[in-house]
Amino acid sequence: MKQINVVGIGPGAWDKMTVEAAEALQSSDTIIGYTVYIDLVRDHLPGKEFLSTPMRKEVDRCVLAFEEAEKDKRVSMICSGDAGVYGMAGLMYEVGERYPEVSLKIIPGVTAALGGAAVLGAPLIHDFCLISLSDLLTPMDKIEKRLAAAGEADFAIVLYNPQSRKRSDYLQKACDILLQYRKENTVCGIVENIGREGESMKILTLRELRDTPVNMFTTVFIGNSQTKIVNGHMVTPRGYRNV
Amino acid sequence: MKQINVVGIGPGAWDKMTVEAAEALQSSDTIIGYTVYIDLVRDHLPGKEFLSTPMRKEVDRCVLAFEEAEKDKRVSMICSGDAGVYGMAGLMYEVGERYPEVSLKIIPGVTAALGGAAVLGAPLIHDFCLISLSDLLTPMDKIEKRLAAAGEADFAIVLYNPQSRKRSDYLQKACDILLQYRKENTVCGIVENIGREGESMKILTLRELRDTPVNMFTTVFIGNSQTKIVNGHMVTPRGYRNV
Repeated sequence: MKQINVVGIGPGAWDKMTVEAAEALQSSDTIIGYTVYIDLVRDHLPGKEFLSTPMRKEVDRCVLAFEEAEKDKRVSMICSGDAGVYGMAGLMYEVGERYPEVSLKIIPGVTAALGGAAVLGAPLIHDFCLISLSDLLTPMDKIEKRLAAAGEADFAIVLYNPQSRKRSDYLQKACDILLQYRKENTVCGIVENIGREGESMKILTLRELRDTPVNMFTTVFIGNSQTKIVNGHMVTPRGYRNV
Repeated sequence: MKQINVVGIGPGAWDKMTVEAAEALQSSDTIIGYTVYIDLVRDHLPGKEFLSTPMRKEVDRCVLAFEEAEKDKRVSMICSGDAGVYGMAGLMYEVGERYPEVSLKIIPGVTAALGGAAVLGAPLIHDFCLISLSDLLTPMDKIEKRLAAAGEADFAIVLYNPQSRKRSDYLQKACDILLQYRKENTVCGIVENIGREGESMKILTLRELRDTPVNMFTTVFIGNSQTKIVNGHMVTPRGYRNV
């Protein structure tokens, strides 16, 4: 049986992927992924074949992986973070219906929510949700409904894709929805370049977050009603009762 | 400056922790954690000192870690999954206020949501939330409100702590709330013993999940309205438009 590894490489630095992920890449012939992710691992994998397709050509990238696997190559498809969180794992299963002789092995990794949380402190100790602000494949009203639901039910929230060139005011809109349910001084955090060169973090209020410029390398964290600042870190308690 | 590593060891098997986590444990003198987690790593760490406190004695465990660090030992506190997701990272910051000379390094790991998703296929490709059904520290009405909000806003949902001896009908109650917003045939999945001996998974409908016995080693996944079964796997598409 031919098999493709679908590997989440974590935030970026080699040591932030799992031992299993590192071993899968080391034992592959061919590594396929978006150029930016290839560049993150290339130096650690001498002698491998690296293949890529441009951004947005995700289906082509999946087809490429299956075609290489059919040549009996040991293939790994890589994604940043976790391949199963806004990643390629789902599309690989969908495209894979055309290649019944190839099975998939999904190797999980540290997604930006977990990697960024560790930089900020411990903002995700209790119930939380992940929401992407990208409306490329999701209607905006669905995103807004999720923001409102998460805001009202007091989830800690992690926002992926908070900004792009075409969506310069989306974070502002998201904060305005959340401000209908949460206090202005709700503890929030932003992390840039998690696990990569230039990593930085900032803790701020929800009101301040609304007017803070972010970019495509920013992950945004909004605390729940109990989240507090402890010694310069963003910390959400385990529950609603004193321990 | 004295420092404690707070390390998420992932689902259980050694190779499912990050390279960074493995290196942190290997360079520690003393590993502190709940007995079950110690047993998962002990064989890989010859010559280390292992210290533990019973379940529910989490504050004592944190104090122990700081006291050992104050003796200039290199200390790692371990948690299963990610220390920042229903884990010890938050409590370590809170207890750490009494030990200003000790800093914390949080090393993230693969939480059960990510590890279990990789076993089921790709259920968490789009927006999702984590909800713990444990009402030990959270009022039940808060949990129910989150279930309803997540159900209505079409999040994929991962349930942690779906069952305990004292809470034998909590999963049933949770499903009843979700069934007010989701179709009976919503694709769901359960995974037991993720990344450990006896790992198993099952895909079923929300109606079937309601009457399925689970235990404290089960993680429960509820798909969103778009989640489907692809070649025996649980797969959530990237959005709401065809790609």
